[in-house]
Amino acid sequence: MSEKKQVTFEDIAKYTGFSKTTISRYFNRPATVTENNRKIIREALDTLGYQENKVAHILATGKTEYVGVIVPSLELDYYSSMLDKILKTYNEFGYKFIVFVGSNDAAAEMRYLEELLAYQIEGLIIMNHTLPSMSLCSLSVPVVAIEREDRFINSVNSDNYLGGIEAASLLLEKPCDVLIHLNSPTDESIPAYRRILGFKDYCLGHGLPCDIMIRDFGYSHEELHIPVKSAFEEMENRYPGMKKGVFCANDVIANYLLGQVIRKYGGLTPYYRIVGFDNTPMAVKAAYSISTIDQQIDVIAREAFSLLLEKIRLKRAGDPAADVPVHKTVSPLILRRETT
Amino acid sequence: MSEKKQVTFEDIAKYTGFSKTTISRYFNRPATVTENNRKIIREALDTLGYQENKVAHILATGKTEYVGVIVPSLELDYYSSMLDKILKTYNEFGYKFIVFVGSNDAAAEMRYLEELLAYQIEGLIIMNHTLPSMSLCSLSVPVVAIEREDRFINSVNSDNYLGGIEAASLLLEKPCDVLIHLNSPTDESIPAYRRILGFKDYCLGHGLPCDIMIRDFGYSHEELHIPVKSAFEEMENRYPGMKKGVFCANDVIANYLLGQVIRKYGGLTPYYRIVGFDNTPMAVKAAYSISTIDQQIDVIAREAFSLLLEKIRLKRAGDPAADVPVHKTVSPLILRRETT
Repeated sequence: MSEKKQVTFEDIAKYTGFSKTTISRYFNRPATVTENNRKIIREALDTLGYQENKVAHILATGKTEYVGVIVPSLELDYYSSMLDKILKTYNEFGYKFIVFVGSNDAAAEMRYLEELLAYQIEGLIIMNHTLPSMSLCSLSVPVVAIEREDRFINSVNSDNYLGGIEAASLLLEKPCDVLIHLNSPTDESIPAYRRILGFKDYCLGHGLPCDIMIRDFGYSHEELHIPVKSAFEEMENRYPGMKKGVFCANDVIANYLLGQVIRKYGGLTPYYRIVGFDNTPMAVKAAYSISTIDQQIDVIAREAFSLLLEKIRLKRAGDPAADVPVHKTVSPLILRRETT
Repeated sequence: MSEKKQVTFEDIAKYTGFSKTTISRYFNRPATVTENNRKIIREALDTLGYQENKVAHILATGKTEYVGVIVPSLELDYYSSMLDKILKTYNEFGYKFIVFVGSNDAAAEMRYLEELLAYQIEGLIIMNHTLPSMSLCSLSVPVVAIEREDRFINSVNSDNYLGGIEAASLLLEKPCDVLIHLNSPTDESIPAYRRILGFKDYCLGHGLPCDIMIRDFGYSHEELHIPVKSAFEEMENRYPGMKKGVFCANDVIANYLLGQVIRKYGGLTPYYRIVGFDNTPMAVKAAYSISTIDQQIDVIAREAFSLLLEKIRLKRAGDPAADVPVHKTVSPLILRRETT
């Protein structure tokens, strides 16, 4: 195993002509070294190959180039897809990501946060719902939320209201007897709640019957199967022989609903037209490709990272704008596929 | 924004009675401070709350509690599922993960490695295929591979040969006219190659006709659709009216094949029995749940991390066993579901 020779403080002192105490101060209390001398030492470190040890560099500059990410689960396509895109921003921006996975456990999330702060992350991207934004906003680093309650922190979300409208209008491109929306109980503070509003408003505005079916669809794939099956049976009983346009809260529910339709009808049928939400890989994995509202996950990931970077910059500059939450929305697109 | 008061070297010196130079040496050249004095300083840091800054702690102990992970893509269920399980080992072991995503770009992977080493990771888990194990083994930290060429590095893999046997035996639980295996071109140095061998050997040993169809199935979902469709058409033409038992290299291919069967036959048919490999969430997302060979991704992830930890320990102890590659296999399980 090859290992580089460690560059010592003595080497750096000899090279720069400074005392070892000055070199030590550079690493431990950089503010006590003049900017000019810091520059000389930095260049010496580069020349001597000391930059190999970024941990020392962090102490000297306070810039870790680390960002923390907390995500509920990677078993759901939406989150793994979003994380994929966030991690790939490295290629453009050079920031590294420390990732924690886990959900619905406030104590665990607090521990993740403590770890991340102890390791001096420069910012945090959070997708978990557990910790309120009122707590998150008091962290010492900027925070950007994606699709969660975000009153006191920065966020980048899909334009959910527009997405709901798009879903309804897509379903109505062909004649429909009833429009249905399947969703889990969603708190009004969660951005995705506005999907429901957009869908409902569009139906009302066009004088169309609409049925908002709120059921507990759970979070894991094992959990999802059963409630989707019973929602399907409910629709079958409630609207027999009617053409149903169904907007599902996400592609996962849409996929399970399509599964039920296939099992009953042996394939696509005019009785069901289905639209999902997200445009995760799931939507093209199904036996018939699923029409969906494309959040543009890659755009959201990139916007979230860029916003975080801007906030980090403002914070470092001592600009009070660093602490004013910014909320961005990305307009979703209609993706017409086989299920509509 | 609340920020803790920074504990200075002066505070620590005053508290311990040591000189500031000693405190400085503790952080920068810990080996020059006696173990006993290191202990006193460590306790003082705890008491004074200095432990909040792990970066300083890293310099003092050399223990970053960071592990690097390099994974090709999170758009494929196998990798996102494995990463999910790896990240969750945090709850048991407390190690943090710096994650890079990207595939088939040796230059990019080298850059990831340089970053990880510069940040003093203690070990690396790698799933990418690009860099040969001969290069990886010369890194200064232990490396554990999962399902990739692993000659000179540690690895934890599924017992792929057994998996191939299990797949064939599962298909033969009901009468079958021909056994078929669908796979991408696979180098013999990749552990998954042995799935093909196990399947073939079982068929030969039982005097059964078997057709190994090697096609380029690609890596993304967009890519997969077309070659699976044409493999399906090939099977339809080559074995009309025959009962085909098809072992797919992974659940993703199995899912697309099932999609083709549904499109042609309107559901399950005695002409096709399908077995996947991996037991990713994909296998239960399909319209009909897919029988599969369960790699036990959670067990593999945990074993990989435990092996890495053991190697880190050996390395720190200067034990030469640290540098001897260990290869572990996890026996897969047969999961009977609707497609068989």
